[in-house]
Amino acid sequence: MTLPPLLLALDYGGTKHTAALLIRGEQVWLAQARAYSPPGADATYDQATMLRLARGLLAQNPGRLAAIGVSFGGPVDAARGIVRLSHHVPGWEETPLRDRLQAEFGVPTAVDNDANIAAFGEWRFGAGQGCASLLYVTVSTGIGGGWVLGGRVYSGADGMAGEIGHIVVRPGGAPCVCGKRGCLEAEACGPAIARAAQERLALEPEAGAGLRDRVGGNADAVTAQHVAEAAAAGDALAAEVLAAAAQALGAGLGGAINLMNPERVVLGGGVTKSGDRWWQIVRETARDHVLPQTRVQIAPAALGDDAPLWGAIGLAEAHA
Amino acid sequence: MTLPPLLLALDYGGTKHTAALLIRGEQVWLAQARAYSPPGADATYDQATMLRLARGLLAQNPGRLAAIGVSFGGPVDAARGIVRLSHHVPGWEETPLRDRLQAEFGVPTAVDNDANIAAFGEWRFGAGQGCASLLYVTVSTGIGGGWVLGGRVYSGADGMAGEIGHIVVRPGGAPCVCGKRGCLEAEACGPAIARAAQERLALEPEAGAGLRDRVGGNADAVTAQHVAEAAAAGDALAAEVLAAAAQALGAGLGGAINLMNPERVVLGGGVTKSGDRWWQIVRETARDHVLPQTRVQIAPAALGDDAPLWGAIGLAEAHA
Repeated sequence: MTLPPLLLALDYGGTKHTAALLIRGEQVWLAQARAYSPPGADATYDQATMLRLARGLLAQNPGRLAAIGVSFGGPVDAARGIVRLSHHVPGWEETPLRDRLQAEFGVPTAVDNDANIAAFGEWRFGAGQGCASLLYVTVSTGIGGGWVLGGRVYSGADGMAGEIGHIVVRPGGAPCVCGKRGCLEAEACGPAIARAAQERLALEPEAGAGLRDRVGGNADAVTAQHVAEAAAAGDALAAEVLAAAAQALGAGLGGAINLMNPERVVLGGGVTKSGDRWWQIVRETARDHVLPQTRVQIAPAALGDDAPLWGAIGLAEAHA
Repeated sequence: MTLPPLLLALDYGGTKHTAALLIRGEQVWLAQARAYSPPGADATYDQATMLRLARGLLAQNPGRLAAIGVSFGGPVDAARGIVRLSHHVPGWEETPLRDRLQAEFGVPTAVDNDANIAAFGEWRFGAGQGCASLLYVTVSTGIGGGWVLGGRVYSGADGMAGEIGHIVVRPGGAPCVCGKRGCLEAEACGPAIARAAQERLALEPEAGAGLRDRVGGNADAVTAQHVAEAAAAGDALAAEVLAAAAQALGAGLGGAINLMNPERVVLGGGVTKSGDRWWQIVRETARDHVLPQTRVQIAPAALGDDAPLWGAIGLAEAHA
């Protein structure tokens, strides 16, 4: 009996690490293993954890490992397979992750950052299949993006392409973690929606009853999900806050579409679960910002939280 | 004696048409011919004019024509070599310009729009040589741009990539020809600078003496060049108007750099002759808008008005 060719996907999140095995050419996972880092974990700990997960999977599933694809939650020099740093975990500075894994497992390995990998996953297996040019944007606790152009991840001169979250859409607007004001991320990500709602509730004690009810009157507990739910249930304050965030996102996407005219834009992340009205405003605002000859095709992501794992499989496949 | 291999560049401007011949591999023109359209000229007239220029050049210069590259001042379907329309000249709708020229001259021909071609020219022969990713932006009576990625023009799904002039940099700002407000073009192109200065002169009768002197007191005659000259000579009103335009451009470029992380941005067009202070503000504002890990390299164009002709030669070369 010939052993099946296996592809291994590794997803180094901030504190959540996942390894997954696929038989090459199949569309369903053969096995997955996941582990969480304790507080205070460093790069050495996380690498040991992932090695244990990967070895365990390979020991339990007969096959011939063909290649490894790796998604890393932080800046990566993809051409050299080097992790530049992690914004969350100490000790990752300039780690030659690709070469370490190649030495460990003896197969071709490719590494890229999570936004690029998720974009590639949606292009290869999800909502961007067949697109000659794809912008993937995740709208979550932050806003990031990745490009797939001509069937390959496009990561720019410094691996920094896709930072759509830090385009200024409202000069002088909300302060952003990057130090600027009015960045798309500061106007449209989940925490931005929650903060905007909290500020309005504090200023308008008579408004937002539907939203207040959802948090037992404790405005500090409001999340973007509460805002979306209250807006869907008819709360006017929540609807206005959500609409402003959707408009900011539409404006940012419109700018990106004017600049690059991608065949499709795919949106993922928790905030994209904010309901039909949110989607409608995002699409209409983007359309209003774009020259008439330019297509505006904005679609929901298909792979959810698994996009980085599928993207890692796509990378592994391309290198096997 | 072997006849030298010739490349023919054709540049269809709005009213100015240029044909130019180069011996393949040389860096100086063999010959150029130019003609201007009279008022009321249409696509048929302009095509006949260009054919006459091209045939004349080829008759006067011995050689073996190897390929033709064409720059067209309007939207082009480059993949099929079809001019979609001209915004200035009637009758160009859906003209199969590539096939007509191939039939006429019997050599490979490639067509693209002037912004893409100029970008390609700067990449191949000018200020963008050797760059893996290049954004070219022309700041003139309008603001347009083009991308060269991986050594090829990137024109997007509908040939509309590079429309940086219609990214909104100041929501609610100056009205734009596209119907929106606060587009980069409406805030930073030459006519926008002139208009902003005229408005300030009307509102502030005591200010802008240096600028008024340049136009004999007739504020309606102020151009962007007057503003740049008066600013350089110390006129405070002119300096403020020019600085605001430079800041708008820097913000737009910063957004583009965040999104695509190009190795270099090259700026051409008349407004880039506005002096050192203009350049300094453009660069500093772009830098302030970009994440720290991302390079900001903004260089003046090297080919001037010849960029489309050189780009057409680059295209011809690639298809010869």
